[in-house]
Amino acid sequence: MDKVERIGVSLDKSLLAEFDSLIAKQGYESRSEAIRDLVRQRLSSESLLNAKANAVAAVCLVYDHHATMVPQKLIDLQHSHLLQAISSLHVHLDRHDCLEVIVLRGPVGRINKVAEGLLSMKGVKLGKINLVALDPSTKS
Amino acid sequence: MDKVERIGVSLDKSLLAEFDSLIAKQGYESRSEAIRDLVRQRLSSESLLNAKANAVAAVCLVYDHHATMVPQKLIDLQHSHLLQAISSLHVHLDRHDCLEVIVLRGPVGRINKVAEGLLSMKGVKLGKINLVALDPSTKS
Amino acid sequence: MDKVERIGVSLDKSLLAEFDSLIAKQGYESRSEAIRDLVRQRLSSESLLNAKANAVAAVCLVYDHHATMVPQKLIDLQHSHLLQAISSLHVHLDRHDCLEVIVLRGPVGRINKVAEGLLSMKGVKLGKINLVALDPSTKS
Amino acid sequence: MDKVERIGVSLDKSLLAEFDSLIAKQGYESRSEAIRDLVRQRLSSESLLNAKANAVAAVCLVYDHHATMVPQKLIDLQHSHLLQAISSLHVHLDRHDCLEVIVLRGPVGRINKVAEGLLSMKGVKLGKINLVALDPSTKS
Repeated sequence: MDKVERIGVSLDKSLLAEFDSLIAKQGYESRSEAIRDLVRQRLSSESLLNAKANAVAAVCLVYDHHATMVPQKLIDLQHSHLLQAISSLHVHLDRHDCLEVIVLRGPVGRINKVAEGLLSMKGVKLGKINLVALDPSTKS
Repeated sequence: MDKVERIGVSLDKSLLAEFDSLIAKQGYESRSEAIRDLVRQRLSSESLLNAKANAVAAVCLVYDHHATMVPQKLIDLQHSHLLQAISSLHVHLDRHDCLEVIVLRGPVGRINKVAEGLLSMKGVKLGKINLVALDPSTKS
Repeated sequence: MDKVERIGVSLDKSLLAEFDSLIAKQGYESRSEAIRDLVRQRLSSESLLNAKANAVAAVCLVYDHHATMVPQKLIDLQHSHLLQAISSLHVHLDRHDCLEVIVLRGPVGRINKVAEGLLSMKGVKLGKINLVALDPSTKS
Repeated sequence: MDKVERIGVSLDKSLLAEFDSLIAKQGYESRSEAIRDLVRQRLSSESLLNAKANAVAAVCLVYDHHATMVPQKLIDLQHSHLLQAISSLHVHLDRHDCLEVIVLRGPVGRINKVAEGLLSMKGVKLGKINLVALDPSTKS
């Protein structure tokens, strides 16, 4: 169990008022929670600059399922790398297009390499990678 | 069936050589495919500036599943909005943390609002939203 | 003069240690200063989503000065809009290319429109827009 | 003088129509110019992932000029690094705040390090870094 520490932060009253109004709109229950989230996001985006940092990623692809090679290639790619392709989720968008979300886990550099391979496939129309740095304490 | 048109593009030889080398590294089979992807990404990021544009999004959340309110709130949130929460995928990361990927569909502005509500929940440590604009011709 | 308020924030010890090490690397003298910066950045990026928010922007353009129309068009554009084009800075990069930084001030939506016009000019090779939201209390 | 090459690109008619309408809105005179810009931006953002790539950057800082140490520190920092601090531009925003745009040139990794040092100074309220990769052929 991680111990909690309480620190003091000084802010201009006007800055604090603006922040309180933003976080109320976002649905935060407390300032502490909102500031913790800012701190965690800052640390996570810093980690992701390091190609060796441990991360999970959701790779989202929109592809035409009539491009019949795509599903097979997706499966091959998921099995041919030193990454964990933990899971994937398939959504039917319309008569032509599917959305596939593939969750990958491993070092940032390797995730980006695999994701590029997925995004550049013929038939894949759009794609994006969402990386989240894992807590160094998280066992991979 | 969409008709294909062929256009001509003039580029400096050195620019073209640099582009060819990048897309080979990324795994593209042809320049046409790589340029189509650039065009589609540009159009998609333009669409996403419009709060009313139709999109799908993968919202990724890392949360502590001991924060017992989170799973219930996730389910409530998914059912309480005028968005389609199409599907979700749950991955066990370690003894404490889970990754939840929630696929939402609807207008960009509404997706962002729901995603903010998810990210600001107590117990949610990190989160990111991946929006992909849908082709206007895609039936929602 | 703005009054300063002191608030308390609770964080896990391990999260705090990671944050302390990042901000020391970045050169911060105190946690308060680092957290104030996170809060200000968050508020600024939120403001910039509002097309009517007041902002300053540095538009950076790399262009070939042999494309002789560019300097003239830059001057025309700076004078033809309802924006303040406060100032600009010109840097000679090599025999062909110049960097021009143009500081614009006005509503976010209008800045983006003018910047697009600059970036799409023939001869402009690369460009980026850096928007900074102005404090609502700043008199324009 | 760089030789120009003409390549052919196949696109769906509907995709092309959408692209034509976007680039007309942005002010492009030709498709070739718009596609060249996409290609250059893609290559530039790829380059910027490499800490050793040669770049220019505009670092924008909003700071309170009553925080009297800032101007002096800005000057020291500009002279104390192995980067070229080519030029800077100062804009008076209101009674309290100034905008300083500092143009730096050198390897991406070093620019980011200096910029972090600038952004973390006490009195600096907001800041952003705009990196533009230089053509490898550009002599530094």
